[in-house]
Amino acid sequence: MERHFDHELETLKERLLLMGGRAESTIHKAVQAAERRDGALAREVVADDKLIDELEIEIDERCVNLLALQQPLARDLRFITAALKITNDLERVGDHGVNIADGALQLVGHPPLAAMNDVMRLAGLATAMLREALDAFVHQDAETARRLVVRDDAVDQLHRQLFGQLMSTMIQDPTSVERAMTLVLVGRSLERVADLATNIAEEVVFIAEARVIKHHSEELKAAARPPASTPHGRQPDSEDFGRT
Amino acid sequence: MERHFDHELETLKERLLLMGGRAESTIHKAVQAAERRDGALAREVVADDKLIDELEIEIDERCVNLLALQQPLARDLRFITAALKITNDLERVGDHGVNIADGALQLVGHPPLAAMNDVMRLAGLATAMLREALDAFVHQDAETARRLVVRDDAVDQLHRQLFGQLMSTMIQDPTSVERAMTLVLVGRSLERVADLATNIAEEVVFIAEARVIKHHSEELKAAARPPASTPHGRQPDSEDFGRT
Repeated sequence: MERHFDHELETLKERLLLMGGRAESTIHKAVQAAERRDGALAREVVADDKLIDELEIEIDERCVNLLALQQPLARDLRFITAALKITNDLERVGDHGVNIADGALQLVGHPPLAAMNDVMRLAGLATAMLREALDAFVHQDAETARRLVVRDDAVDQLHRQLFGQLMSTMIQDPTSVERAMTLVLVGRSLERVADLATNIAEEVVFIAEARVIKHHSEELKAAARPPASTPHGRQPDSEDFGRT
Repeated sequence: MERHFDHELETLKERLLLMGGRAESTIHKAVQAAERRDGALAREVVADDKLIDELEIEIDERCVNLLALQQPLARDLRFITAALKITNDLERVGDHGVNIADGALQLVGHPPLAAMNDVMRLAGLATAMLREALDAFVHQDAETARRLVVRDDAVDQLHRQLFGQLMSTMIQDPTSVERAMTLVLVGRSLERVADLATNIAEEVVFIAEARVIKHHSEELKAAARPPASTPHGRQPDSEDFGRT
């Protein structure tokens, strides 16, 4: 029974990694389609998203069956309940992929905008966060997860910069409005992907340490900043994120 | 033991309704702030979102404790696993409220745009869907839930119309670009809120009937359309959404 449970848990992790990999490559492909203004590639994303949706259903069933048949406790119970939330997050990443692909279709046949470079950078940051958050999840690596929560700041900063750049483009050149607007929405989707990666990272800490850092990101970020607000640049110790 | 479990389940439902009510009123307040260009009201939304975040943590703990201590099966197990996903969805609704409030702050001191009327209508549709989805959830009313999935179409249509209107405004009047862009992002957030309500409705059908309609919305919508594609305008019967 015990060995069977361990085996089922391993399979669950493998399937989650597969789902995460597909979600990541969906975003990658959608952004590539936007950069190359490649309609065929954009349409592939919609098909890819269906595979992600199917994996969500399959993994959720695995979780419910594990809960029903094995009645796990403590760390395993937390892992499985977190997995249910994470499939929800990954499914949403797939939806953002479809949104970005819709944007790519709008761009087909139109001249490129300079801001596309920053869109590509933003996509790189967001998908790297997603991949690392999933890795941290299956390896239950809370340290990596904590660092990821802080990294969301860099994404927000690049997203704001991109937004400002696109706004200027639209004001200066009314013929660019539709294309620039499309990139604004692509940028917003990528920023949400990074938020979803941050959610996953928060779940990792929850599982590993049975402590909720969710919605405490600001404290984590403040603690990671240089001196000024945090004397001696001290790292937060375990009590800082505890709830009683 | 049995009565204790029923009592705990009732409390769980009450807390979910409370969380849903707060999520809904956050969206309402944020959109009001955008309409009145009222910075003080917009800032209230950020405080309200913290209450939603706290409820997510509390309700998730209730779910995990119920799973650990009561080891529920069948319908109760499905209800609790769905609740874990729904708190995730409602938390995200709160985040959209904060996004909309950020938009409202951008609008303070600037003249209004005509498109605001459609934004208000969109907000009305999205929050009504959210409220009804939550009601359907606690009453495990699959019929209402199925109808909600179909209603998402009306939201998408209004959202597209709003988007087109704002695009024209930007092209015709470059001084409106920043305000119009803000409303585009507000509109996108409201459309996502309706998507999240649709997710919740899909969970309701899952619990009530142990069938997954998730990602089958297109079939549901096709079945609800007048004749042409569905002979005799027949409603889907149970097999249509079943998975074996």
